[in-house]
Amino acid sequence: MRVILAAGTTETGLVDGISAAGAAPEVMVHTPAADAEILVYGEPAIAPVTPVSPTGCPTPAAITRAVREVVGFDVTVLAAGLAKPTAAPTVDLEAAPGADIREPVAVPDAESIFERAREYGASLPEDEDELLIGETIPGGTTTALGVATALGEPIGVSSSLPANPLERKRAVVERGLEASGLEPGDCAGTPLEAIRTMGDPVQAAVAGVAAGALDRGTRVTLAGGTQLVAVAAVLRHAGVSGRLRLTTTSFVAADEGVDLEAVGDRLDLEIEVTDPAFERSDHVSMARYCAGEAKEGVGMGGALSLVPDGRMGDVRERIETVCARLGVDDDRTRTELETEDSRGS
Amino acid sequence: MRVILAAGTTETGLVDGISAAGAAPEVMVHTPAADAEILVYGEPAIAPVTPVSPTGCPTPAAITRAVREVVGFDVTVLAAGLAKPTAAPTVDLEAAPGADIREPVAVPDAESIFERAREYGASLPEDEDELLIGETIPGGTTTALGVATALGEPIGVSSSLPANPLERKRAVVERGLEASGLEPGDCAGTPLEAIRTMGDPVQAAVAGVAAGALDRGTRVTLAGGTQLVAVAAVLRHAGVSGRLRLTTTSFVAADEGVDLEAVGDRLDLEIEVTDPAFERSDHVSMARYCAGEAKEGVGMGGALSLVPDGRMGDVRERIETVCARLGVDDDRTRTELETEDSRGS
Repeated sequence: MRVILAAGTTETGLVDGISAAGAAPEVMVHTPAADAEILVYGEPAIAPVTPVSPTGCPTPAAITRAVREVVGFDVTVLAAGLAKPTAAPTVDLEAAPGADIREPVAVPDAESIFERAREYGASLPEDEDELLIGETIPGGTTTALGVATALGEPIGVSSSLPANPLERKRAVVERGLEASGLEPGDCAGTPLEAIRTMGDPVQAAVAGVAAGALDRGTRVTLAGGTQLVAVAAVLRHAGVSGRLRLTTTSFVAADEGVDLEAVGDRLDLEIEVTDPAFERSDHVSMARYCAGEAKEGVGMGGALSLVPDGRMGDVRERIETVCARLGVDDDRTRTELETEDSRGS
Repeated sequence: MRVILAAGTTETGLVDGISAAGAAPEVMVHTPAADAEILVYGEPAIAPVTPVSPTGCPTPAAITRAVREVVGFDVTVLAAGLAKPTAAPTVDLEAAPGADIREPVAVPDAESIFERAREYGASLPEDEDELLIGETIPGGTTTALGVATALGEPIGVSSSLPANPLERKRAVVERGLEASGLEPGDCAGTPLEAIRTMGDPVQAAVAGVAAGALDRGTRVTLAGGTQLVAVAAVLRHAGVSGRLRLTTTSFVAADEGVDLEAVGDRLDLEIEVTDPAFERSDHVSMARYCAGEAKEGVGMGGALSLVPDGRMGDVRERIETVCARLGVDDDRTRTELETEDSRGS
């Protein structure tokens, strides 16, 4: 089993208050590079940060890595617009970081990223009969809303924050459409144009790998939440008709702003939801997920779907080990969290 | 356990008759890219060839991959002078392919490759307490002889051909020294200068990763034959005094031109020899190794050292599976081999 992680950045992620993928904007730019290192090596290598949300919720990379340590799977990282170097080995898609979608053009190289990713997906040996494709890109739910709106697809989007700043995202998307001279639905049938104007480089990478692998007869699972629902919409608008599955976490499924069943029907997308039963743990990291933080990312839901029956307890234990290695569960953090909680943030 | 594979090329490999790492010079340039893909994916992806010697001996990548399929280990590929693209994820050392050592300068960027590799080796998490470092570079035993001669280290070098074209290699090295204005031993104590004038980019990469990892207290095993003996000499001449082990195959140890015990003493290098007992198989691939072809490469000896007692039979069986996947053991190949054999080549 191979998990492919498309890692990139978009300046959209720096818009105030739309992402929790990092404690502050100046460290968030390192998040995808650090996530890739955590998944590959078990902790950051040259990336100077461990991504945690402002309230101390560890990156989903910690969860996906814990699953990897329990069940074992291969990882390939796609460099799809990284703004900072990573020590993780990567397949380089020669993608630039994405611009703010409030600019006229957000991903000038959308088409070439897609084509390189498709070539890569089509080159994978037939022996690899199933691929999970995940993502890490701060701000990705806003670009997902941007692309879905440009395509005219009414999908809800989730958030890495417990309270989804949806009005803020909608305002960013509205300004983006205006800057690009678009009305909602104007890019129906031209999904790479939707990404070019309103998306991010990771969407082009995931869509390309999925298209290439499906061409070759490989089963594809989009391992993620609403960001990958938007990619599924891109694929359907590109005329890709192969069987597609989306595997995500129970935290995304529980989000009231998201109707997975409806988008599954609309996009002919098989939906699988995995529940890691984090409520059975009193570890601070898992408690943050239960409180609605992070929810998904770095292929978390898809990775959890690989855990055999009866071994989810091992995964929860391993999450504590990984978090200890990442310095997430020390007393300082716990105290800070309690202080935050008592302030009701 | 992580196996790091430094993959690169040198135009020295194109000198007529010095390497068997590919059926012909025009395909040999793809060998490192293909080896990396075989190790990562189990077969070539975008590389257009499966590396086999002129008589049909499969690349050691097939053996190392078979071990990986039996025992499981992580792989990181370092792009250290690749001349062709690979679909394997890589850590990019920004190394150019090496020039022919008969030019005045063979590796102009030796120092920057070494420094980037050292930074990478030092960045690996402490959790990774042991590293195996292997190589793939056609022509690498000739550049090994070049560097060892420039350092004044009397090491013998092995060959991927059953009959080592040692005179030819010596002649290439002599012309190289002349072109660089060097006498044997002139680079003693300045090993990066030895690589710059007489070596290849993969040597700089392996030496750098080893130096960085040793700095950090990680145990390092050089997984290879005389090419990595030359790298051990580079490390000792660079003043690196940490504990170093070299693990190689019984095929290298059986080479009369190589005295592993003597170089082990000279370079303070712990020597470990692994014997996969290929004589117990009548499969064409393993028979070629018993006939003295290939011998080592792509971390083969080091990978074999990871096989637990009693499981080498599983590895030999898996080699047949991998070879079948690579199309190495079909009737055509076997017939060709028999024809070659009957011609006494």
